[in-house]
Amino acid sequence: MIKKPINVILDGDPGHDDAIAWVVAKASSDFNILACTAVNGNCSAAKAAYNSQRICALIGLDVPIAKGQDKPLVIESLKAPTNIHGESGLDGPELPLPKRELEDLTAVELMIKVLEEAKEKVTIVATGPLTNVGALLLVRPDLKEKIHQISIMGGGIKHGNWTAAAEFNILIDPDSADIVFGSGLPILMSGLDVTEKALVTPKDVEKIKKIDNPVADIVWQWLEFFYQFHVSIGYPGAPIHDLCAVLALNHPEIFTMQKMYVEVETASEYCKGATIGDINNIAGKKPNATVLMDVDREKFIEYMIEAIKSYSEGN
Amino acid sequence: MIKKPINVILDGDPGHDDAIAWVVAKASSDFNILACTAVNGNCSAAKAAYNSQRICALIGLDVPIAKGQDKPLVIESLKAPTNIHGESGLDGPELPLPKRELEDLTAVELMIKVLEEAKEKVTIVATGPLTNVGALLLVRPDLKEKIHQISIMGGGIKHGNWTAAAEFNILIDPDSADIVFGSGLPILMSGLDVTEKALVTPKDVEKIKKIDNPVADIVWQWLEFFYQFHVSIGYPGAPIHDLCAVLALNHPEIFTMQKMYVEVETASEYCKGATIGDINNIAGKKPNATVLMDVDREKFIEYMIEAIKSYSEGN
Amino acid sequence: MIKKPINVILDGDPGHDDAIAWVVAKASSDFNILACTAVNGNCSAAKAAYNSQRICALIGLDVPIAKGQDKPLVIESLKAPTNIHGESGLDGPELPLPKRELEDLTAVELMIKVLEEAKEKVTIVATGPLTNVGALLLVRPDLKEKIHQISIMGGGIKHGNWTAAAEFNILIDPDSADIVFGSGLPILMSGLDVTEKALVTPKDVEKIKKIDNPVADIVWQWLEFFYQFHVSIGYPGAPIHDLCAVLALNHPEIFTMQKMYVEVETASEYCKGATIGDINNIAGKKPNATVLMDVDREKFIEYMIEAIKSYSEGN
Amino acid sequence: MIKKPINVILDGDPGHDDAIAWVVAKASSDFNILACTAVNGNCSAAKAAYNSQRICALIGLDVPIAKGQDKPLVIESLKAPTNIHGESGLDGPELPLPKRELEDLTAVELMIKVLEEAKEKVTIVATGPLTNVGALLLVRPDLKEKIHQISIMGGGIKHGNWTAAAEFNILIDPDSADIVFGSGLPILMSGLDVTEKALVTPKDVEKIKKIDNPVADIVWQWLEFFYQFHVSIGYPGAPIHDLCAVLALNHPEIFTMQKMYVEVETASEYCKGATIGDINNIAGKKPNATVLMDVDREKFIEYMIEAIKSYSEGN
Repeated sequence: MIKKPINVILDGDPGHDDAIAWVVAKASSDFNILACTAVNGNCSAAKAAYNSQRICALIGLDVPIAKGQDKPLVIESLKAPTNIHGESGLDGPELPLPKRELEDLTAVELMIKVLEEAKEKVTIVATGPLTNVGALLLVRPDLKEKIHQISIMGGGIKHGNWTAAAEFNILIDPDSADIVFGSGLPILMSGLDVTEKALVTPKDVEKIKKIDNPVADIVWQWLEFFYQFHVSIGYPGAPIHDLCAVLALNHPEIFTMQKMYVEVETASEYCKGATIGDINNIAGKKPNATVLMDVDREKFIEYMIEAIKSYSEGN
Repeated sequence: MIKKPINVILDGDPGHDDAIAWVVAKASSDFNILACTAVNGNCSAAKAAYNSQRICALIGLDVPIAKGQDKPLVIESLKAPTNIHGESGLDGPELPLPKRELEDLTAVELMIKVLEEAKEKVTIVATGPLTNVGALLLVRPDLKEKIHQISIMGGGIKHGNWTAAAEFNILIDPDSADIVFGSGLPILMSGLDVTEKALVTPKDVEKIKKIDNPVADIVWQWLEFFYQFHVSIGYPGAPIHDLCAVLALNHPEIFTMQKMYVEVETASEYCKGATIGDINNIAGKKPNATVLMDVDREKFIEYMIEAIKSYSEGN
Repeated sequence: MIKKPINVILDGDPGHDDAIAWVVAKASSDFNILACTAVNGNCSAAKAAYNSQRICALIGLDVPIAKGQDKPLVIESLKAPTNIHGESGLDGPELPLPKRELEDLTAVELMIKVLEEAKEKVTIVATGPLTNVGALLLVRPDLKEKIHQISIMGGGIKHGNWTAAAEFNILIDPDSADIVFGSGLPILMSGLDVTEKALVTPKDVEKIKKIDNPVADIVWQWLEFFYQFHVSIGYPGAPIHDLCAVLALNHPEIFTMQKMYVEVETASEYCKGATIGDINNIAGKKPNATVLMDVDREKFIEYMIEAIKSYSEGN
Repeated sequence: MIKKPINVILDGDPGHDDAIAWVVAKASSDFNILACTAVNGNCSAAKAAYNSQRICALIGLDVPIAKGQDKPLVIESLKAPTNIHGESGLDGPELPLPKRELEDLTAVELMIKVLEEAKEKVTIVATGPLTNVGALLLVRPDLKEKIHQISIMGGGIKHGNWTAAAEFNILIDPDSADIVFGSGLPILMSGLDVTEKALVTPKDVEKIKKIDNPVADIVWQWLEFFYQFHVSIGYPGAPIHDLCAVLALNHPEIFTMQKMYVEVETASEYCKGATIGDINNIAGKKPNATVLMDVDREKFIEYMIEAIKSYSEGN
């Protein structure tokens, strides 16, 4: 029996881990990628769009690409964290120049077009702040019926990484996150609980360095760049956050998941951007999210390496 | 010298006073109406859109009409106040049936189209909750350069009408209002400070009743309906709130205006939806709004009656 | 028939207008002053206590005086506004040195003692931030039965003076104000609505200057000092805010008052410290305050001058 | 060398686990108990005070006892959770009647007296909502110099038990907790992170049942009562939360502790009462609390049993 591929829109702010997530998604026949959309987050929307074009050129992904929202829905944007991803948002090795122009549509307009034209439901993989997705749901709530689920990288049930309470992607635009979690659509949440366990180590990087294809050659350098930063702030490896949001779709068996009710705090001084998961179901509300809590790291790395290998000629 | 007409999009939730505002706008050569867009507020967006179609049929306004946002951007909607405008949102006399279909575009999409095609800047007259306008500014901030100003009916510097602190249109969707006031675009604000002085009395209604044309025949019944409600809650007349947002554009001289910095409170338990105007400029911030504080009521009524008369044949 | 005097505790942060309020209260046989308590506000609690001692020396008031809370209940204190009252909190003419030591009790402890010993109910006249009163109500809620009412200077229904939404005394300690307004005790509120109409003009100052007694000689200099500041920021005279809270007790007939439900906003970014009065009773809640909205300025000044005259020998 | 005993005030809302904490504290020569003070929480302050009297009668503790605050400082109280501790707040076996009258002082007044008279610094062990301690710090901040540290049971870094975000003691009175954490005094925090690991099992209860003294006879019944409830909601044993706050003082070596900066959220809809611990020191603030994160459960039970045994005659 042939499994039908999962229709996806890749929405993100590449960003090293977004980039790797897209590399892996493109490599697998499990996914049918319909479009890439860029959003403000790790870098400006313009930089994220340009990075998207270059990633697509690298991996031979010929789909429409659009620049999206350049600031959060309601609040002002935090400054992009150039210490993590560099000035370009994707510093490190030189990528090929864009092969395909940006669409003459905003990200939201491209999403609308893709969803309207889609014959089957589409999954949105959102690995940056949720501004594009939030704006889409605001402007065209009728299109929810065309969305299968939203797989996000964002949040954290037990802690944050940008404040004590909040993770970066949600903190940047809590109002959009609130719209997404309150949309009634199935949410697959890869938060810090799992992504900080999805670590790449120098040994893994060595393996990728040995793979002989142009994508591998870029990816190991990204990982090297990303690893150096994380080791400098005390991590035991480089967490490939965004890749969880992809692998959760075609390899759910390697993750421990828990359904729960998650609220997004949008207004508090200390908790703004927190994703409050009712892990013991104290309030007795119907779960609105499936939250990834743990991962089989070995398998996670294995699938990543396998995907990178597939870019070698002859594959 | 011939004054060039003001290009306007009429955005509202008709609603008796929205309807009268549109009647007056259509009657004047001062305005070039490009589109009508309906929003959730006094009634659902669907009802408001249907009412818009019927008002346009009544006044012979043949422009694109679109249904807009059916709920506030971030929060849930309050219940429509059927005690004021009735179940239909525009109870009272029977209106002609629609002559023009709704566009196959959302209000935001229609606004985008109109603005993109406009050769000159356009003024948005927003007499309902600001959800359509807020969503437009979110999704296409680049189109600000096509907007001349936003003339709103909403808020109140000294008091509210739906809570002690908040006026209905702003309370319904404070997040959209926050986006509008924070947009950097010129805001002309007709709040309760002025609109509760823009009163129609039975004597005025009598005058309109004597005008012999089909529009007058409808308008006096609307006013009668609207007056009855307001007298029942202790008003000395019927405040034609929304008409201020139109007359402020072509007859600014009949209003007392004050430039000031206005914040919209979006999060507080007691003050949600308040428009906090720094009337004494305590904070020393640059004004973001021109606020109408008083009106020459006689002139206001005169312009209204003159507009209604213009619908008589031969005019 | 002889009217029984009103038992009062004078609680404040003198401050020029507190001082004048105390001068007038002492002069009248309508009041039986039981104690003076000082609180952080216009100046530190220590300075306010020292100023209280010197005012008492000036006016021959021999009652216990205690230093009270030096910071708001929950939040940090704003900086004292030395531009208004000077470094000492009561700059201007030299006052007599203290005649009576401070009690070896905190203000709250002194209030508890006075209330416990009182045979009849006591009115608290609070003309500074409400921290002492709030702390008293927290620690000894059982003593509410000994309190007749609380006459405060603070807040404003229609506007603020320290932010667009908030008046100084309430803004300094909104949590205490919330406790006071929520206490169930009768609140007589002299807010900016009335106090900014309780203006002293140069002509009034001239009259006081002509009175030949040591108190008048100080008061006209205070008024001169206070007037200069207010004229410099655009006021037509010097508002003797705190005196309203005294005269409202023995001359209520010169004020326009309205009972209403007042909430204190403690948490909002833009509205913190606002006193939201439901002036049209939209929420239908039972009034918790009697709010002074207007004053017969001529009578107000007359009572003030009469009180000052009474300090002349032979009176 | 003889270790000097630790001067303590026991402040709580007994409550089964408060009671056990006090039983253990009394048994040890490590502590010099100066007073017991009762607060609203598991039951009303009146019931907590009566329970305190009866616990003292049981364990032969002859110190002043005072009833304290009957509601949180600023907000209204949640309803007491009678499903956990029963109607009396300490249901189960019959306790001896009080031997010592309540003081004719409030808890805050008793604490003030004890601290003023103390020759050496005193540790406050607070195992209920922090209202008494918060009120004390408000009214007499000068007495901080007499307080060595505050050992509390409350909060949770990774989760709540009364809402998804908040633990019961903190949720009841977040404003008091905010005052305590912001006081500058050393805080030893036994939150859910550790207390939910401080479990008593049926095997432990059996051991206590075999001890032949009147205290043991009561304690095993309390534990039985407390265990039944917790097993019914899915716990593997009965968490003796409050005992952590005592044993952390004389047996710190059995706990894993981490210094960190902890904020208390007082205003948010979803996070009110949360204790946000900056576990990775993201904000770089100076720690204000030492947080217990884990416990050697075997040792914990051992010290508890040893204490209960000490009540046998001949000891």
